[in-house]
Amino acid sequence: MSEFLILVTNDDGIYAPGIKALKSALQEIGTVTVAAPLAEKSAVGHAITLSDPLRVQEVERDGAFFGYAVNGTPADCVKLGIRCLCEREPDLVVSGINLGPNTAVNIIYSGTVSAAAEVTIMGIPSIAVSIASFHKHEYKYAAEITVKTAKKVLENGLPAGTLLNINVPALPRKEIKGVRITRQGRGRYEEAYDKRVDPNQRVYYWLTGKKMILDSGTDVDDSAVMDNYVSITPVRYDLTDQKFLKELKQWNLRR
Amino acid sequence: MSEFLILVTNDDGIYAPGIKALKSALQEIGTVTVAAPLAEKSAVGHAITLSDPLRVQEVERDGAFFGYAVNGTPADCVKLGIRCLCEREPDLVVSGINLGPNTAVNIIYSGTVSAAAEVTIMGIPSIAVSIASFHKHEYKYAAEITVKTAKKVLENGLPAGTLLNINVPALPRKEIKGVRITRQGRGRYEEAYDKRVDPNQRVYYWLTGKKMILDSGTDVDDSAVMDNYVSITPVRYDLTDQKFLKELKQWNLRR
Repeated sequence: MSEFLILVTNDDGIYAPGIKALKSALQEIGTVTVAAPLAEKSAVGHAITLSDPLRVQEVERDGAFFGYAVNGTPADCVKLGIRCLCEREPDLVVSGINLGPNTAVNIIYSGTVSAAAEVTIMGIPSIAVSIASFHKHEYKYAAEITVKTAKKVLENGLPAGTLLNINVPALPRKEIKGVRITRQGRGRYEEAYDKRVDPNQRVYYWLTGKKMILDSGTDVDDSAVMDNYVSITPVRYDLTDQKFLKELKQWNLRR
Repeated sequence: MSEFLILVTNDDGIYAPGIKALKSALQEIGTVTVAAPLAEKSAVGHAITLSDPLRVQEVERDGAFFGYAVNGTPADCVKLGIRCLCEREPDLVVSGINLGPNTAVNIIYSGTVSAAAEVTIMGIPSIAVSIASFHKHEYKYAAEITVKTAKKVLENGLPAGTLLNINVPALPRKEIKGVRITRQGRGRYEEAYDKRVDPNQRVYYWLTGKKMILDSGTDVDDSAVMDNYVSITPVRYDLTDQKFLKELKQWNLRR
């Protein structure tokens, strides 16, 4: 038996199929503890719960203990998971398998990636993994490439503060062309709001929009996935615009 | 009258004192539209509302129309504000004045900064502004330095994708020593959970923690504020770890 302890979370909720596939696959390389949101928490970004208490319940799947459900966000789950639910500090945290790509601007909105980012702040290596499709499909290959990557992370480590963001095309293994190490693309959404009137004559708005791919090339996450490659991006929340910093000093803003 | 249109938001909610001070001050340089959360939305990060409809209500303060309250997050407010509530695309968006510092890791958790970041994704310049205190105090100087910075932004522009994150010491103007252009510090929280039992014998957890300052120097945001300087950091959500990317390619991860 391996001595590795791996914490698994997601943002689609503890009953999602992706987290079950991920847990099963990772048990090959270590002991797995699951701490995930009770309800779906997509697009919650890096939200943490400060004003409400968190509660935990033990959840069964297929008749056996599966993991801990938390009434909070993915970032809450990993914080509480690491501090209170794991037997010791985990060696690795893996977040996913998310349904839908977390590439380009989606990285910022994603609860899946934010959970992994929260973990790096706590000084533990982490991986986020998503399938580039919103439809039901096979998680087998995505779980497999995650295990392969996880082994490398446990072997080599990651720089403090950096996580790996994996996006897998929604294809069977034999149609995947390979793995590309990529950067975050510049794609974003062209949003619109659909304005409607409810049966009580009150106005409400639905967010709609379509993603615009704004750059391409073998080094871009979105392009890799579209070209049927697995995309792996090293992600780091170092938010200073170093280039503009120099110019900003020339503005001579004074008290 | 100026032709500038400025959208104002926050994460403390539309009835907070900080947003009122900000609106009043910015009216000196343009027309101001307010779109802010109906309820407090601190630490929501970059959350956006996808699964629920958004509703808008017109809010009065001091007997006159003040702005639009949205039942969503700060990121929702600026998206909906720009697309549906402003008469035309605003020239600038300002988020604040937040109570509590948004320095170091807080930038990631902050609804105030995330609203400003969402705006830069939409291609509009933005500023986030916070006072480094959680207690009630004077907003006058913070509003003043924000107006000064806003004028410069309207004059010079900002690089596409970059926002300015201002943190102001909670001091009267005469005790402020000046303005420092800074980088995001590496400070983070040492968290703990306070485990309690409710009157129904159910366990719950409160997040607690204290901030650890992990670096210092005249170029660090937290240090500037502690030294009684205004801190202005150019913030950019370009999340690729370029340095590690090269090393990661050597891992030779294969399909």
